[in-house]
This record gives sequence, structure tokens and C-alpha cells, in this order.
Amino acid sequence: MLFGADIGGSHIRVGRVVAGRVVQKIEKVVERSPKTVAHQIADALLKLGASGKVRIGIGCAGTVCPQTGKVVFSPNLGWHNVDLAFEVISVAEEAGLEPLVTIENDVNAAVWGEFKCGAGRGIRNLAGVFVGTGIGGGLVIDGKLVRGASGRGGEVGHAPFEAGGVRCACGRRGCFEAYAGGRAIEAHYERLTGERLKASEIWVRREKDSSAAQVWSKAIEALAHLMLVLSAVVNVERVVLGGGVVERCNGLADKVAAAYKGLVGDGWSAVDVVVAQLRGEATLVGAALLAL
Amino acid sequence: MLFGADIGGSHIRVGRVVAGRVVQKIEKVVERSPKTVAHQIADALLKLGASGKVRIGIGCAGTVCPQTGKVVFSPNLGWHNVDLAFEVISVAEEAGLEPLVTIENDVNAAVWGEFKCGAGRGIRNLAGVFVGTGIGGGLVIDGKLVRGASGRGGEVGHAPFEAGGVRCACGRRGCFEAYAGGRAIEAHYERLTGERLKASEIWVRREKDSSAAQVWSKAIEALAHLMLVLSAVVNVERVVLGGGVVERCNGLADKVAAAYKGLVGDGWSAVDVVVAQLRGEATLVGAALLAL
Repeated sequence: MLFGADIGGSHIRVGRVVAGRVVQKIEKVVERSPKTVAHQIADALLKLGASGKVRIGIGCAGTVCPQTGKVVFSPNLGWHNVDLAFEVISVAEEAGLEPLVTIENDVNAAVWGEFKCGAGRGIRNLAGVFVGTGIGGGLVIDGKLVRGASGRGGEVGHAPFEAGGVRCACGRRGCFEAYAGGRAIEAHYERLTGERLKASEIWVRREKDSSAAQVWSKAIEALAHLMLVLSAVVNVERVVLGGGVVERCNGLADKVAAAYKGLVGDGWSAVDVVVAQLRGEATLVGAALLAL
Repeated sequence: MLFGADIGGSHIRVGRVVAGRVVQKIEKVVERSPKTVAHQIADALLKLGASGKVRIGIGCAGTVCPQTGKVVFSPNLGWHNVDLAFEVISVAEEAGLEPLVTIENDVNAAVWGEFKCGAGRGIRNLAGVFVGTGIGGGLVIDGKLVRGASGRGGEVGHAPFEAGGVRCACGRRGCFEAYAGGRAIEAHYERLTGERLKASEIWVRREKDSSAAQVWSKAIEALAHLMLVLSAVVNVERVVLGGGVVERCNGLADKVAAAYKGLVGDGWSAVDVVVAQLRGEATLVGAALLAL
């Protein structure tokens, strides 16, 4: 039996995956202690009908090491060097299961999910860009997930967009995330208007509110340039755009694709920009498939 | 016996490679017709002592398809869809050889050479950035050369540095090459001073000539940001900086590395920026090793 888990900063979701689809899932507020999280996962597995040999893939926010099964650092969870695979295996074995556990960064898992069962099916070279509070990303090159030197392959949100530009949450200046991440969009709008709104609320105001239009115009420009970076540096065939902000802002992906095509120019083959298909289940599905 | 060939816009070099080093080579002005180039290669092989079974790797400027052995498009050579592997095999067989031919883009071959026998030895994830007239590049990820969707993997020179910036030779605006490629540096200096000098001549004037300092300051800023792009998007361990301009501008790579470290900020592990070691022989060696 195959299961996936998605450990985010606020919630944990565990689901049973059959033929690349989530057939049943359980969602809870995530606990802070790794051992308690391991218990949450084991409890969920049992409730989802797990018995005997089970494969479980866990997508976790933060820097993870798939080789050792450790969460190296997860700022959202407050974890440093947590041996999550060991914790999950221990608790699951106590519960009578024979678990095979795989750990991956949540965004990498989501990109893998889209690659295998979503908007990236049928190609070999894919980039995923997920716009939520920040901007996460991942790369599949020649059919393999790129982890990079320190597990941060595809973390495109912190590539530079404007030299010496806006200060980013990461401490550097001018990162793509500082222009097109949800939090950055909201902060930019607040600087202009004094009003605090969600990125998706600012999105629907674009036609009537020039500040909203200005903020989103800059964010779209940044995302279009990010597509250009991905096509130039990695020469991917397709970029999947996803994440909460993309899901909630109707037509955003099309605007980004159009702005990107305008930048590419004639004589260059443009990369395909498409919307993610698995939405909130991408990490869960991808993590499960990485456990195969 | 193992041979490498480097077909550039002006010269062709063919060399015998033993243990990752060029033991003997022949250099000629490159002909324009593919068949004549094939004859140049076969003649050089014979002069270099080839007989019987030979492996030859050819690094060629332009977009190539290693699977089919074709040069898809080489603007410098004026070639479109040239079946170079077939031409070389035909001529070499007529000359009594039993050739095994591999074709690769010249910059990709150079990066592979540095990866196997130069400044990239001992690591798994490497980017190469070669600054000459333009900026070429290549990527090795998890020990494999990245070709990308259309053979342009690692062509980092045409990633964007400044949105809507200087017009690049490629037709787009703001590419890294438009700020830090040799031709762009020379054009920038000419715009400021009316004087046409080589990039390396402008480099030595930096201390006394404020225009030269300004041009190179911008180029170094661009190259430092390019390192940031490579570390963020691909999370490589090391970037090898090479090419004619880097070779002729003493201390340039150190300046780029220092500027890049200044951008990275604390708490981020910086990628290692080093100078290429194989210099003019990187393509020849790398192409030969790709034929193994």
C-alpha cells in the first residue's frame, strides 16, 4: 500500500495514493515535536487502512536530505537535524506496520507529483514554480528530480530579479520572491495604500485600483522573467505554475505566460507555461510516488 | 585511440587525448563546407597517428544534437541541419579508419572537460560560464551533462540580468551577455568614450580611466548576479569561470567571486567560484572524453 504525507507549516495531510491519485486523506493541525508528528502520521496510516508492508513518502517544508531521511532545517516547523524517517519508522513499527519511508522537500515532491501525474506528464525537462507566501520551485531534468549540492535545487524564488532591489525575507536584495511572492505583493500594496489585503483580493481590484494594478504588473513582470531564467539556464520544456496565489488569482498564469512570450522574442522557442493540476494534493501524490 | 576536435567560428583544432590531456594537436583555419571540415578532421587524425579503431569527440559551436550527430544550427559556421557525424565517418572510413564519432556543443564539451579533468574534478554539480565574445555556459548535474529540451541547457548568457535593459545580440533585452560578454563590454566602452578597445585592454585601464572602471564594474556586477542565479536555480557546488576574456583579464575571476560573496549574505552557503584550468583545450579534451 502506498501513502503520501505533506507536512507544512500549519497542517499535516496524510493520504492513500492509488494510481497517482489520492483516494482518501486525513488532515490535522501539525504538532511541533517530531515524535508527535510521527504519531500523527502512524495514526493516520492506520485510519486509512494501512497494514503490513507500507510505503510512505513524506514531503516536508524545509531543507531535507533524502539520503539520510533527515530534515536538515525547517524554519516553519522549528526543526534542525531531525531524523524524521527514523521517528516515523519507529512509531509505525510499534503500531505493527512494516514501513518503507522516503523524505523529500515539499516543493520538490509537488514538482515530482506534477511531473508524474499532473501538468508535467509526458516530458523530460520540467520546472515547477509555486507561488504562495513565498516562491518555491523544483526542477526535473532528463526525468530526474534535481536536488543540487545541498538539497536546494530549483529554489528559484531566491534567484535575483533586480540587482540591489527590494529586501527579501531571506536577507538578500532583489529576489524574485520579493516581487512576486504573496507576502511581498501584500507588503507592496500596503506600502502604496496603507491597506492590508490578501494577494488574491488585490488581484480582483486590478481593473479599478491603480495601486493594485501596479503591484500585480510588477509581480507578473517578475514571474515572466523567472520563466526566462528557467528556459535559458536549464532549457526546460515546460514550466508548471502553481501554489495558493496562482490557484486563487484567476487568469494569473495566462498573464504570466503572455508576458513571458512577449519577452522571448521571435526566433526563440518559448517554453510552455501551464497551470499545475494537482493543486493542494501535489506534494502528497509526489511524495508517495517518490517512495516507489 | 582517443581524439578530440574543437570546431570554432574561425579555427579547427584536432588533438590526441591521453589520460585527459592533449598530447599532440593540429590547428587550422576552419573551412565552411561540412565535407571539407570532415576532410580537415580526417587528415589531422592521420597526421596524429590514427589507425584502425578510433574514437573521436567533436565539440562544435552552435546547437547540436548528440543523439543524431547533427549540427542543428551554427550561426558562426553558417550550418543548418548538417549531419557532421555522417560526414566525418564517411571521410574517415575512406581513409581506412574505423571511427566512432560523438558530437557535442563546444561549450558543453568544455564544461565536461573541466568537470572530468579540470577545475570541476571531484564534485557532482558544476556550472561553467565562459566569457568570450559572448557568454556561453553549461551545466553538469549529478554527474551528467544537461542538454535540456533543445540542446541549450546551461546557456546562461541569455538569462535576464536587467528587465528591459540593454539590447542583446540575441534580439532580447537585458541578457547577462549584453553586460558582461566581451563584445558588449567593448561596445559599452565605445559608447562612453568613442574609443574602440579590446575588453582586456579596457580591463588594464580600470585604475586610471573612470569609463573603463564603470564598464567593468557593471560587467562584474552582472557576472556576480549570474553566479547567484546558478546557485539559486540549480544549487551547483561550484562555478568554473573561463573563456578568452577571463583568461586575458588578470584577477577578474577573483573580483567576480568577491562581488558574488557580497551578494549572497550570511546564512547562505556560497557556491565556489573558480577559474577554468584547461583554457583553450577544454573543448577538445571534453569532446574526446564524451566519446568514451
